[in-house]
Amino acid sequence: MRPSGRAPDQMRAITIEPRFTRHAEGSVLIGFGDTKVLVTASIEERVPPFLRGKGEGWVTAEYGMLPRATHTRGNREAAKGKQSGRTQEIQRLIGRSLRSVVDMKLLGERQIVLDCDVIQADGGTRTASISGAWVALRLAVDGLLKSGKLTTDPITQKVAAVSCGIYKGTPVLDLDYDEDSAADADGNFVLLENGNIAEAQATAEHATYDEEALLRLLRLARMGCGDIFRAQAEAVK
Amino acid sequence: MRPSGRAPDQMRAITIEPRFTRHAEGSVLIGFGDTKVLVTASIEERVPPFLRGKGEGWVTAEYGMLPRATHTRGNREAAKGKQSGRTQEIQRLIGRSLRSVVDMKLLGERQIVLDCDVIQADGGTRTASISGAWVALRLAVDGLLKSGKLTTDPITQKVAAVSCGIYKGTPVLDLDYDEDSAADADGNFVLLENGNIAEAQATAEHATYDEEALLRLLRLARMGCGDIFRAQAEAVK
Amino acid sequence: MRPSGRAPDQMRAITIEPRFTRHAEGSVLIGFGDTKVLVTASIEERVPPFLRGKGEGWVTAEYGMLPRATHTRGNREAAKGKQSGRTQEIQRLIGRSLRSVVDMKLLGERQIVLDCDVIQADGGTRTASISGAWVALRLAVDGLLKSGKLTTDPITQKVAAVSCGIYKGTPVLDLDYDEDSAADADGNFVLLENGNIAEAQATAEHATYDEEALLRLLRLARMGCGDIFRAQAEAVK
Amino acid sequence: MRPSGRAPDQMRAITIEPRFTRHAEGSVLIGFGDTKVLVTASIEERVPPFLRGKGEGWVTAEYGMLPRATHTRGNREAAKGKQSGRTQEIQRLIGRSLRSVVDMKLLGERQIVLDCDVIQADGGTRTASISGAWVALRLAVDGLLKSGKLTTDPITQKVAAVSCGIYKGTPVLDLDYDEDSAADADGNFVLLENGNIAEAQATAEHATYDEEALLRLLRLARMGCGDIFRAQAEAVK
Amino acid sequence: MRPSGRAPDQMRAITIEPRFTRHAEGSVLIGFGDTKVLVTASIEERVPPFLRGKGEGWVTAEYGMLPRATHTRGNREAAKGKQSGRTQEIQRLIGRSLRSVVDMKLLGERQIVLDCDVIQADGGTRTASISGAWVALRLAVDGLLKSGKLTTDPITQKVAAVSCGIYKGTPVLDLDYDEDSAADADGNFVLLENGNIAEAQATAEHATYDEEALLRLLRLARMGCGDIFRAQAEAVK
Amino acid sequence: MRPSGRAPDQMRAITIEPRFTRHAEGSVLIGFGDTKVLVTASIEERVPPFLRGKGEGWVTAEYGMLPRATHTRGNREAAKGKQSGRTQEIQRLIGRSLRSVVDMKLLGERQIVLDCDVIQADGGTRTASISGAWVALRLAVDGLLKSGKLTTDPITQKVAAVSCGIYKGTPVLDLDYDEDSAADADGNFVLLENGNIAEAQATAEHATYDEEALLRLLRLARMGCGDIFRAQAEAVK
Repeated sequence: MRPSGRAPDQMRAITIEPRFTRHAEGSVLIGFGDTKVLVTASIEERVPPFLRGKGEGWVTAEYGMLPRATHTRGNREAAKGKQSGRTQEIQRLIGRSLRSVVDMKLLGERQIVLDCDVIQADGGTRTASISGAWVALRLAVDGLLKSGKLTTDPITQKVAAVSCGIYKGTPVLDLDYDEDSAADADGNFVLLENGNIAEAQATAEHATYDEEALLRLLRLARMGCGDIFRAQAEAVK
Repeated sequence: MRPSGRAPDQMRAITIEPRFTRHAEGSVLIGFGDTKVLVTASIEERVPPFLRGKGEGWVTAEYGMLPRATHTRGNREAAKGKQSGRTQEIQRLIGRSLRSVVDMKLLGERQIVLDCDVIQADGGTRTASISGAWVALRLAVDGLLKSGKLTTDPITQKVAAVSCGIYKGTPVLDLDYDEDSAADADGNFVLLENGNIAEAQATAEHATYDEEALLRLLRLARMGCGDIFRAQAEAVK
Repeated sequence: MRPSGRAPDQMRAITIEPRFTRHAEGSVLIGFGDTKVLVTASIEERVPPFLRGKGEGWVTAEYGMLPRATHTRGNREAAKGKQSGRTQEIQRLIGRSLRSVVDMKLLGERQIVLDCDVIQADGGTRTASISGAWVALRLAVDGLLKSGKLTTDPITQKVAAVSCGIYKGTPVLDLDYDEDSAADADGNFVLLENGNIAEAQATAEHATYDEEALLRLLRLARMGCGDIFRAQAEAVK
Repeated sequence: MRPSGRAPDQMRAITIEPRFTRHAEGSVLIGFGDTKVLVTASIEERVPPFLRGKGEGWVTAEYGMLPRATHTRGNREAAKGKQSGRTQEIQRLIGRSLRSVVDMKLLGERQIVLDCDVIQADGGTRTASISGAWVALRLAVDGLLKSGKLTTDPITQKVAAVSCGIYKGTPVLDLDYDEDSAADADGNFVLLENGNIAEAQATAEHATYDEEALLRLLRLARMGCGDIFRAQAEAVK
Repeated sequence: MRPSGRAPDQMRAITIEPRFTRHAEGSVLIGFGDTKVLVTASIEERVPPFLRGKGEGWVTAEYGMLPRATHTRGNREAAKGKQSGRTQEIQRLIGRSLRSVVDMKLLGERQIVLDCDVIQADGGTRTASISGAWVALRLAVDGLLKSGKLTTDPITQKVAAVSCGIYKGTPVLDLDYDEDSAADADGNFVLLENGNIAEAQATAEHATYDEEALLRLLRLARMGCGDIFRAQAEAVK
Repeated sequence: MRPSGRAPDQMRAITIEPRFTRHAEGSVLIGFGDTKVLVTASIEERVPPFLRGKGEGWVTAEYGMLPRATHTRGNREAAKGKQSGRTQEIQRLIGRSLRSVVDMKLLGERQIVLDCDVIQADGGTRTASISGAWVALRLAVDGLLKSGKLTTDPITQKVAAVSCGIYKGTPVLDLDYDEDSAADADGNFVLLENGNIAEAQATAEHATYDEEALLRLLRLARMGCGDIFRAQAEAVK
């Protein structure tokens, strides 16, 4: 029995508020239940040094958590003077995931920065970030297309992500904090709308797992991402 | 004529959404027009080293701006590895302002941290932060009173803040970004409900000013803070 | 009664030793009583990136305190690896204050850096820094004029600063450490010789204050700055 | 055809030199072909703050790469003043992997730090680190058992890791640098001797992949880890 | 011929102003010609962690250079966020040198911190620092003796330092900046009044040197330190 | 009697394994007894900013110690976020020493970076680093000569270094850790094959020393460096 009373294959409510802020070229407040992430997409007409002059674009991400997004207040990374290993790991994952659905030649020599800031955390902040980042990216690229800066859409398809894990012996979809902190194993799956996998990660926390469990987690992820793809489509309609 | 069409002594719309997030002991999303700041109040049952064992509490603040709260994206302070001088100056001001209305002996040996994170910026982020911080603090202290951890209210009165400045030769209230970036002089006033001043600051930007102008700014600030006090009272009713 | 026996409107002895060191284009050791600050002005034939190619100059300041300038030794900021919020706040104030009396177009595309290092502290280090910085700047610009690098004087007038505060209920001028650490409110006023205000700041420490008190502090500051303007004039004669 | 001429399911030569250095309680130089990692295990009779007084031990890891372990010299992280996101991600993975085979209650209130320093890099440094770390840990724990500080072995079984990826459309085992830098997708699998999975990660680099490919990579990993388990057993005999 | 016209074995004028600042337990402004260093000695009634509870004291030093002590302005180390290798090397040398004349058991469990801040630089700042630090230390310890906190003098004898180098082929004493920047080799010698050596360092800059040259430098240093010992004695009389 | 049983003028076994790693242009594992240092020489076809366009090359060094090279584990400098003063002092010494035997005009506008990483420490790591760095540099320059990038050898002669110290009253050569940690005085001498001195440093640790002792240490160093020069010649044959 899940603490939230959900069925094992049941996502939390997915809420997407596009254009949540007004300065960014794309922005969205995405919620997976009580997890709320604000994602903005900023277009910069320059690329990182390693890409200059190659006629290709870049998509990158940064991630942060407001100090009191969590049950107990965490120290502000800006005040500590460095980003934690966890933060860096997550923002690398978000960037990779979004790059998997963008044709960099079509994007042209510009960069899109996806800032994912967790307003409230209840498990699954990295997967909500990826799923919301696609919406912010879509809105920003729509602006480029509308203004004529781009004539061909560089986004090849949708990408979404969800966490799955083994909680009290049962594979479950979209772990909330109560489940996440007690899970035997937990994973994050980044899937494309065409069914392909951009990233699969599953980590033993309190117990290792077998191949069958890995496959079961992946299948739960497919179900969850189906829901997210529908919500994304609705949001950018 | 102000870019927004407001009268010189007219505040922007003040919006206050109390309890915007659920983990913090107090939280609020405050808006002065398009400026939106999320403030959380976190209660910690310990005090900084210099106060240990003295039977007194402490109130402090931290301030941050999401990278794309502004027209063009700013670098994330956590990624740069340090807080700017501006950030530190603002968070020192917020902390001082709120401490001016708290009786530290009555608060007892605990600390309340006020995190002010700017979601969207359009001028006046520090004054919106102070004004919202009072609401978050009020909600957090109400919780302490309700739970019996405190029996006497340590908050002595309301505090609010507003910016005023000289724009194209005219003293105006509550500058937005367009005015702020072109003002001759601009100031921030932190006022108590009883009319006293907690902090007055007025800085020449493009032109110095005289004593009469300083007084005119202060009077505009009184008008603006009157509006804010009413909105605060409404929000915590 | 002030600890020093001074009258409420009495400055400490102002001492100014111009050309205290020999490498800097301008230098001065300024004293407000036991507060001693060494200020050097360094001319650099380049400007910060945001001004390049605009034909305008820049004036900026840095501030530091020797570890044992104070009653008890403070940690060296270079060893701690960062400047405190207080240091950054002060150096921003000094830079703004001096820029208020320089015509940047006349200065031309060069930068003058004002380094203010507190040798001995007894209250009022930021105001002594501003007052001394004007002398160092004057000497440096005199050199530019003498050498023919400048033909028109870019300094428009004198600027000086002094602290005022409310000590045991009485507004007093030029607080020393004993007063400063016990003041109800304390402020810093940066005034021009023509009577205008470049910066007014007054902060409640142990008690908030009213409008009349603010005006009284400002008038004390005018008296103190009068003395400083005379000492500056004498020093650069 | 692989650049090295290996068959798709062929590991590089595994070399393990136990007791490579003399001060550490356990040490090993492990090689996967030209990739060479020095791993030391240091026993500390204390645990991190979050575990104090709980009667449990801890195993953690740090990872570094000598500046010229690679084809072109990289900047020294100690000189840059921070560890990269990649470094932190890897050392977190190594620590988690080794903790999956240690019973922390049996280890008792002490910490074992596994330092993995890459002497020469040719792909697979993180998987060689994990595989070597098990040997260093085994040697260190053998010392604790021999000296009587432990009476029951806290290591529950062997753990090993290997990379697999899709190179020119073909799933291959144990990628070297030439393959790694051109792979469509690449993954790291951390497996226990009993067949269970401690960590599975597979990332699309130039092309996303499907479920069948994920399974094929996992099966290649099983083959590779089989070889590593045999080499580990030989090394600690 | 030396740029300054001095004879090869001639020191610059040694000036020592004891009690230059008033808060420190010992302070001095020492000059070797145009090199001016302010040294303060701060007594702290605690020792570093590695000495706690051993009944021994400690003497340590920190070194800094004001940004415009030199011909062209250097960046402030506090602003850069770290001390240079040169700074750290010098402060380690100063600390070691002074510890060589203090009996740590007699000093008791307290620490004396010697802050050496270069006000103006013209070569030899580290040797002036050491020579001045002895005076500041002497004054601080005299205070401990006078107040009865110490009954036996822990300072065993005088220590002084001077630079020597090979300039245009000739060994010379006490290099100024013009010589220092062009010297073939340059060295720093820390000598005790009884003739013993606390530290000898001689580095080839533009040309290596032979044993005879090393001895000649050492003998010049003895002459220079003789002058310094006399000036120190005069200053603390 | 030395702990190791060596005669006072006896070096430890010198072992040199050239070409220890394969990516660097020059590499060596050098051992002085149980002290083992891996040195790599990396050629970069650019020079530091201060040398650009001058037609001269540069040689520099970096030094690090693996966390468990020592008896007890030290913190990783990359994790602490800065290099210690000791590390910086050593790498400055190594760089200076090697530059004393290179003709920078003949080297041309390129830089050679010497990375010295201590794999195992037993005293004398800086002198082993210098001695090994010469071999790595020699191998790297041989490659430049062989490839025709250089036609004239810029290395003018051999350089080697060894530590000497006064242990229980007796001057001894090449201190190991047991001696080093208990020595009255200890020094490092960097000598050229032609007999000249590049650097002489001798520091009192527990007792100051006289001129005769300094000379005795220098003569021991000559004996030790003779052995090292022979081992270097053998290694690069």
